[in-house]
Amino acid sequence: MDTHLKETRLDGKLAYDGGFLKVTRDRIALPDGAETHREFIRHPGAVVILPLFEDGSVLLERQFRYPLDRVFIEYPAGKIDPGEDPLACAKRELQEETGYTATDWHFLCTIHNAIAYSDEHLDLYLARNLTAGEAQLDDGEFLETFRASVPEMLEKVKSGEVTDVKTVIGTFWLEKILDGRWSPG
Amino acid sequence: MDTHLKETRLDGKLAYDGGFLKVTRDRIALPDGAETHREFIRHPGAVVILPLFEDGSVLLERQFRYPLDRVFIEYPAGKIDPGEDPLACAKRELQEETGYTATDWHFLCTIHNAIAYSDEHLDLYLARNLTAGEAQLDDGEFLETFRASVPEMLEKVKSGEVTDVKTVIGTFWLEKILDGRWSPG
Repeated sequence: MDTHLKETRLDGKLAYDGGFLKVTRDRIALPDGAETHREFIRHPGAVVILPLFEDGSVLLERQFRYPLDRVFIEYPAGKIDPGEDPLACAKRELQEETGYTATDWHFLCTIHNAIAYSDEHLDLYLARNLTAGEAQLDDGEFLETFRASVPEMLEKVKSGEVTDVKTVIGTFWLEKILDGRWSPG
Repeated sequence: MDTHLKETRLDGKLAYDGGFLKVTRDRIALPDGAETHREFIRHPGAVVILPLFEDGSVLLERQFRYPLDRVFIEYPAGKIDPGEDPLACAKRELQEETGYTATDWHFLCTIHNAIAYSDEHLDLYLARNLTAGEAQLDDGEFLETFRASVPEMLEKVKSGEVTDVKTVIGTFWLEKILDGRWSPG
């Protein structure tokens, strides 16, 4: 049905294979038959965890993000390992980064964060019934955690203190869930 | 204050210079002094336009996104030209992609969509008092437009039909503005 919009791959190659980023460059046909190229990052996908405590507060991280040369406030998140189940990844990342485990998990939504140049998707999960434990950060991973209420997080979104898209979207979803207007799972 | 989190550039280079994507690879020092590398995309930044009509409906686009091999529902958006003012870019992109011009513009927020591997930011603008005109799509640009109400867009976010982050966040902001809880500008 979308043939008037669709772009078709003709051929392509891995144009850059870095330790972390891989760039694919494809020759494609546009809807009108003209040829051009598309370059994009191949990404395995990621998960985002929204850890919600009984008192309505959420667990957040402060982490330095090199491309933007500053610390960001974020929900815990991580890349999916090859073949890994997304929910298993969410449980693993929450425990590794924060030490917390949770017994009540609900998938909320999938988001696409850079559709012009990456195939990355992020799956957001709500995690409740949390128990504290010992974090096990990867080598070279540095972060600190803190708690905030959802209204405090919304204020940070509104004021521009929180700008990371997964964290902005997770906060809006949490407001809907706590208001009872949207239900998880 | 964030020296316990900060990563410091030692040296680096442009590791991949494609027609569209540019990858920087830097050697860095971690907070504990250990050395590693960071790879990321340099991006000029982009704008997103939320065109809101008097009747409460918004203008959207359907566009094929090659990295994910499907059509996405999105607000009008575009990359900032070198030296271009973001608001001027928003006005230009709205007119080029949809034909519409607007006389009432308000900056809403900046978001960062891929902080692990891109320095991209997106500035969201509310555009009101809209007048229809003739679109002037770039060569190789194919899209169609449609109108939807904000409640319809929220339902598409909830159901997973809308997954593009700028469009998810723009829709949540529009709900806040139409409810009178957040005010633009």
